[in-house]
Amino acid sequence: MKKILIIGAGRSASSLIKYLLQKSETENLFITIGDLSEDLAKKKTNNHKNARAIAFDIFNEAQRKEEIQQSDIVVSMLPAHLHIEVAKDCVTYKKHMVTASYISPAMQELDQVAKENNLILMNEIGLDPGIDHMSAMKVMDEIREKGGNIILFESFCGGLVAPESDNNLWNYKFSWNPRNVVLAGQGGAAKFIQEGKYKYIPYNKLFRRTEFLEVEGFGRFEAYANRDSLKYRSVYGLDNALTCYRGTIRRVGYSRAWDILVQLGMTDDTYVMEDSENMTYRQFTNSFLPYHPTDTVEIKLRHAQKIDQDDIIWDKLVELDLFNSTKIVGLKNATPAQILEKILAEKWALQPQDKDMIVMYHKFGYELNGEKKQIDSTMVCIGEDQTYTAMAKTVGLPVAIATLRILKGEIKTPGVQLPISKEVYEPILKELEEYGVIFNEKEVPYLGYNHLNINN
Amino acid sequence: MKKILIIGAGRSASSLIKYLLQKSETENLFITIGDLSEDLAKKKTNNHKNARAIAFDIFNEAQRKEEIQQSDIVVSMLPAHLHIEVAKDCVTYKKHMVTASYISPAMQELDQVAKENNLILMNEIGLDPGIDHMSAMKVMDEIREKGGNIILFESFCGGLVAPESDNNLWNYKFSWNPRNVVLAGQGGAAKFIQEGKYKYIPYNKLFRRTEFLEVEGFGRFEAYANRDSLKYRSVYGLDNALTCYRGTIRRVGYSRAWDILVQLGMTDDTYVMEDSENMTYRQFTNSFLPYHPTDTVEIKLRHAQKIDQDDIIWDKLVELDLFNSTKIVGLKNATPAQILEKILAEKWALQPQDKDMIVMYHKFGYELNGEKKQIDSTMVCIGEDQTYTAMAKTVGLPVAIATLRILKGEIKTPGVQLPISKEVYEPILKELEEYGVIFNEKEVPYLGYNHLNINN
Repeated sequence: MKKILIIGAGRSASSLIKYLLQKSETENLFITIGDLSEDLAKKKTNNHKNARAIAFDIFNEAQRKEEIQQSDIVVSMLPAHLHIEVAKDCVTYKKHMVTASYISPAMQELDQVAKENNLILMNEIGLDPGIDHMSAMKVMDEIREKGGNIILFESFCGGLVAPESDNNLWNYKFSWNPRNVVLAGQGGAAKFIQEGKYKYIPYNKLFRRTEFLEVEGFGRFEAYANRDSLKYRSVYGLDNALTCYRGTIRRVGYSRAWDILVQLGMTDDTYVMEDSENMTYRQFTNSFLPYHPTDTVEIKLRHAQKIDQDDIIWDKLVELDLFNSTKIVGLKNATPAQILEKILAEKWALQPQDKDMIVMYHKFGYELNGEKKQIDSTMVCIGEDQTYTAMAKTVGLPVAIATLRILKGEIKTPGVQLPISKEVYEPILKELEEYGVIFNEKEVPYLGYNHLNINN
Repeated sequence: MKKILIIGAGRSASSLIKYLLQKSETENLFITIGDLSEDLAKKKTNNHKNARAIAFDIFNEAQRKEEIQQSDIVVSMLPAHLHIEVAKDCVTYKKHMVTASYISPAMQELDQVAKENNLILMNEIGLDPGIDHMSAMKVMDEIREKGGNIILFESFCGGLVAPESDNNLWNYKFSWNPRNVVLAGQGGAAKFIQEGKYKYIPYNKLFRRTEFLEVEGFGRFEAYANRDSLKYRSVYGLDNALTCYRGTIRRVGYSRAWDILVQLGMTDDTYVMEDSENMTYRQFTNSFLPYHPTDTVEIKLRHAQKIDQDDIIWDKLVELDLFNSTKIVGLKNATPAQILEKILAEKWALQPQDKDMIVMYHKFGYELNGEKKQIDSTMVCIGEDQTYTAMAKTVGLPVAIATLRILKGEIKTPGVQLPISKEVYEPILKELEEYGVIFNEKEVPYLGYNHLNINN
């Protein structure tokens, strides 16, 4: 039997584990699932005869080395900064490894030794990064094989709530780490290139410079720019593309309302608020507004943010309980961002019967035989339930499929890898379709941002 | 002869050196002035017979120790982070020391050993910090001696251009480090307390929540909040004061226009712009605005910032040459803030015939015999010329006066000190008046922010 060690049995490992257990009979697999919580690991193995659940502490060096040594391949679903210790042990004991995380500089340093030992350290093979790389490279390779020259690449992804569970005014619920949602866009300007011009959007304008996206059958979405749209420009072979833009998808109206929270200062994570523990939600909101002995928090906020009486944005703020004078923050020495996260978590948690939704949208502009053309590629995936969410499926299934294919020698290229070669993406995208992760590609008229070709 | 070592002969040392040279005959002083540039040091000594100019490198340990050992007191006008090496040597060789900088934690650690050796390490005795401490403590001590209880303290300071040299639309020129002006307010929210409520202003609102100040004979000013208004709350004995606020003074209209630069993203110092070296000023501005093949940078900026055609703010932007398509940035790998600093330096440099101006404004609200009262204390100081600027006078003279008084044993309390005791501030404020640094104190009606005493 081939032995797979999966480290981390959290939410995003559900579909991954389910897939490998299902394949364990036909493929002759034995799966060890390790998590700090043995209970959680047990829950995921579901007493399957080809599985073993163990309490596993990544900082227990002896255990870590022992388990890695016993396995044929290691899947790390740990937080990104913890992969490196596992990766080093994998190199020591000559085991392949798979993660869904960005390649860190420390990971990249293992490339040479991995190649020398014919080991595959596959990374960025979840959803984003992961399915975005694969689905984009597929279309771009096709365009290039036809002789096309790519001039525009835009790519958007969002983890949202499914239409059938979409019952708040923000049209949003948390399907992944809420803290990352609160801090989104902080720490520098969003950078991209548009028609050959570098553009920078500061944080305080980020949520007002969205663009709209239509997805057939699902209506209209909006997207705000990611921090660094140029990260994969070279990797994708797009150094000469005039436009390169990556963004995060939300339902229309979310960003304009979110910007109110940003402008108030509620997303700031750089300082601790006085007596945050005993503060009411209303006092929290009032902290960001000028003092006045009689004016209400409501009128001060409406005035500060110029919110008209009939603006739906107001109802969104009220829905969050931001003016509630009885609810207590209850967090010691908390930053505004930590307090906001708590307030949002109460309202935006996925409920037991809720389903989540992943939306991905790529635009490829290209020139072929002197003509400008465009392909749009879209994917929508809706979760089954609270365990097999769309997030768990789209993050976990590509990891699982890649793991099995590496074990079987079908993915061969050694080194620190990400899934941009045909060897990797073609079979994985194909298999993902069986699980409902289907890209809809279609030719659309090319517009770009300067379709009249005005010189400037 | 008593020997004084002054390290650093830059702009802010001019009045300091002049004062001590003038006193050198009657007080029997010999002054050594050390600077990286021997020429600069020589220029400041002006061949005075009681002075010696030397090339001095703070990182030359042998020279540093030798010179400190030879002196009776050391004045460090170095950048703040370099004081500590000097301070340690001063302790070793049992010399007093004076700086105009904030007490760093490392400096504070020397308190015990300084006291044991009966040494005075006097800090924060320039303008701000310095004259602000002294002039505030004087009035607060007087109020407390009368039995008053201070309920409100607001303190404002600004380095500006004198009315006779005020000939740009921003009513501002650089009289100190331009970089600090560009980065002002960054790195966290401004925090203060108003009528017992903690308030936080995020950077993106800082320059729109100014308050106005009237100074007799000089008209109207505005002030934006400093980062931490509560820093000296305990030191000043104001833990129970309902309002504690510190701010930076500008001429009316500056902040609203500056906010445009902030909102555009031009003050960001966290990332480097692509090809900054060859960028025109117009391209710099356009980087922060959406791409369009035909719309001008001007209309895009007017639209993004909602600037009406007849708004004077527009002329302020034009005055900076932000739309100039021939001027080249010429800075390699520069951040937006570095580029903006360069653009501003061209327009806001003090010209040879220009004079600068310091404005300080304190408000003290207090209760006495059941009555609420207020004292406002204001000081305006105008520079003589480009060498003996108001900045050089107000920073250097208190340092100089304190240095002489320590030498003469008139300031006695040992340890790491700041000038908040009567022993220090009383004679220094009195002598400063001879040099035109005069506070105008007057009783005004107490208003506070809740003068109707509404309970909330």
